[in-house]
Amino acid sequence: MFLSKLIPSEDAKKIISNCLKPTKVEEIKLEEAYSRVLSQKIISNLDSPPFDRSAMDGYAIQAEDTFGHSEKNPVQMKIVDRIGAGEKSDVNLEKGEAIKIATGAPLPAGANAVVMEEFTHPEGDFLQVETSLTPGENVSQRGEDFSSDDLVLEKGKLLNPAELGIVASTGFNHVSVFKKPKIGVIITGSELVMPKQDIKGAEVINSNHFTIKSMVESCLAIPEMFHSVDNADNVEELFKSLLDEYDAIITTGGTAISKGDVVVDVAQKLGEVLFHGVAMRPGKPFAFAQIQGKPVFMLSGFPVAAMVQFDVFIRNALFEMQGLTRDPLIIQKKAAKKIPSSLGRIDYVRAKINGELVHPLKTKGSGIIRSMVESDSYIVIPENQEGVMQGEECDVLPYQSLKA
Amino acid sequence: MFLSKLIPSEDAKKIISNCLKPTKVEEIKLEEAYSRVLSQKIISNLDSPPFDRSAMDGYAIQAEDTFGHSEKNPVQMKIVDRIGAGEKSDVNLEKGEAIKIATGAPLPAGANAVVMEEFTHPEGDFLQVETSLTPGENVSQRGEDFSSDDLVLEKGKLLNPAELGIVASTGFNHVSVFKKPKIGVIITGSELVMPKQDIKGAEVINSNHFTIKSMVESCLAIPEMFHSVDNADNVEELFKSLLDEYDAIITTGGTAISKGDVVVDVAQKLGEVLFHGVAMRPGKPFAFAQIQGKPVFMLSGFPVAAMVQFDVFIRNALFEMQGLTRDPLIIQKKAAKKIPSSLGRIDYVRAKINGELVHPLKTKGSGIIRSMVESDSYIVIPENQEGVMQGEECDVLPYQSLKA
Repeated sequence: MFLSKLIPSEDAKKIISNCLKPTKVEEIKLEEAYSRVLSQKIISNLDSPPFDRSAMDGYAIQAEDTFGHSEKNPVQMKIVDRIGAGEKSDVNLEKGEAIKIATGAPLPAGANAVVMEEFTHPEGDFLQVETSLTPGENVSQRGEDFSSDDLVLEKGKLLNPAELGIVASTGFNHVSVFKKPKIGVIITGSELVMPKQDIKGAEVINSNHFTIKSMVESCLAIPEMFHSVDNADNVEELFKSLLDEYDAIITTGGTAISKGDVVVDVAQKLGEVLFHGVAMRPGKPFAFAQIQGKPVFMLSGFPVAAMVQFDVFIRNALFEMQGLTRDPLIIQKKAAKKIPSSLGRIDYVRAKINGELVHPLKTKGSGIIRSMVESDSYIVIPENQEGVMQGEECDVLPYQSLKA
Repeated sequence: MFLSKLIPSEDAKKIISNCLKPTKVEEIKLEEAYSRVLSQKIISNLDSPPFDRSAMDGYAIQAEDTFGHSEKNPVQMKIVDRIGAGEKSDVNLEKGEAIKIATGAPLPAGANAVVMEEFTHPEGDFLQVETSLTPGENVSQRGEDFSSDDLVLEKGKLLNPAELGIVASTGFNHVSVFKKPKIGVIITGSELVMPKQDIKGAEVINSNHFTIKSMVESCLAIPEMFHSVDNADNVEELFKSLLDEYDAIITTGGTAISKGDVVVDVAQKLGEVLFHGVAMRPGKPFAFAQIQGKPVFMLSGFPVAAMVQFDVFIRNALFEMQGLTRDPLIIQKKAAKKIPSSLGRIDYVRAKINGELVHPLKTKGSGIIRSMVESDSYIVIPENQEGVMQGEECDVLPYQSLKA
């Protein structure tokens, strides 16, 4: 099979997105939920804080008792109780009274403010207050953060530290999340061997094994790695054995247009190839199929082309399969030098950010993996733009922002 | 012990950095090295590519044979061998000859270019070539990516997908990396309970357990979580039991200035408190000690203050302990509205990026965890600046860029 007409990358993304299904859900301990994606809304059953509480270590009082007082004109109050952390008082505080209170402890009935310790002088059962307070001062109101029945988190939220903290505060110790997608990765290439020092003849080290595996991991999915020689029967056999068990298949190699390139042909035999060839550089020979309802992503065998294709088409697909939609951060920098590109093709130029400038890296071909190590971002030159002039602002996609 | 004079956050960072020691190193399989930090240089023993190789599926030829030829004026050549992927040819190609070759296969002796399949017409043992090639065209030169003895990666590199790929290409299947730091985390607070729906009395849910644990994980370190009531003896006991086994200790709570705040006092009793109180908001009550040569980070008990202190002081320290130095990405956005701040204090304002604007979030106090969930970045207002005007450019630190 030969490359179809090259399609724009945005069209390719839409075709892929239409073929994706979310993974099943599972309930897990909140303790183990970091970097998972919520498959439920979190609606609180609790108020947070659960009661009016002291935001400081100090003394609960009635603010009105302090009006007009200061360091030079303190007011004396009577200490009637002490509330440590984790304790509460049953005393109903009255005018002229103070109750010692720890940060986070429930404000006693009758009090409406807390005076910080450093503005007071205790003397036995009495307290000099050397400042004037407003009602509510140093008090966190019940429900100030959220109230019972509040929608606290939407379905599809990635559980980062702050999200885990707020789920905990709603009282949930388990959450329902999307399962991590299981991805079968087939690296094709008869010449490929695992890393060793004594490579012989036409052997080439299988670096895609390591790059694609870790890229899948960086998308919070679970890769399982396979290898196939460049033979249609072997590739077909592997496809068939993986389609049932995995949520998606990724291949590398065999997507060009010659007779040795069997992967796309096999995909077409078993299912439907929805496109083959995208108007981008690097990464033109990328294909996508649907087989038995499963998405099959066919990457180039060239390490860098495969990585760019992964970043552009697979990364967000794997997030979407686990219920997560996210926009990578695109920033604007000035091109440190002229970058040529052709109309009708989107270019992902490996680049390095340096202050307000972004430097395109000298690269030749799509196989130079060193350029990926030395770069920290892509300059993205859209289809309708013919290159970037020196000093011109361009869109930059930092690698850091690609991860979840 | 009371707060010392507030120190600038940059001074605090330097004091911390001076107390850090790298973790021990270990040799692990490359297969398991994703997101680890190299503790060795990678110097290649191999050339990459290991030989002049074909960058296309096509025919190896001598470019000179094609000079002046085109679709309308093809040149006929004799096919003398075929090289599939993973194969090599022993034929020495001569003038007028062509050898069929797969992408990645070694260029046969005598050839100096590869003509792509689509510019050829094979007829039995003969080939029509319908284009003109320059020497070296469609050939990846031996050592083009890197050569034997090249320094390919420096010590201290984070092993992301591209780095794993290049290490593999050098032939290494094991690498020496820094051990992940083991962090003992002590959450203090007598009032704290694990998440449950039926909280009673003065109980407060221990959300710091979940936020701090996952923040440590996000720094590629290994947290172990402990809880202590607000009692000096208990805190001291825990400190003593953890100091031998862990590379660092993090505490939350007990860093304010009242008598109930015992953590800093215990640290001073067991070792040396190097500072207590930083000129920042939120997060002023942050302390740092060295005990038995181990760094001890003492965070506020307020969830948001603790998170900001972690981002500012602990995150890079945990990276540094495993040999990784990194600068988070700071970008410039225009403030959507005026943000007040005081001279002499660095402010980390929770904010949300929206195109060219950044919106500071309405927050009250440092305990409002919801503001962390709703924000995606910090606006950083330096010590020497008194607030930000509406429309003024300000420094923004996206949360996404904080992770490794």
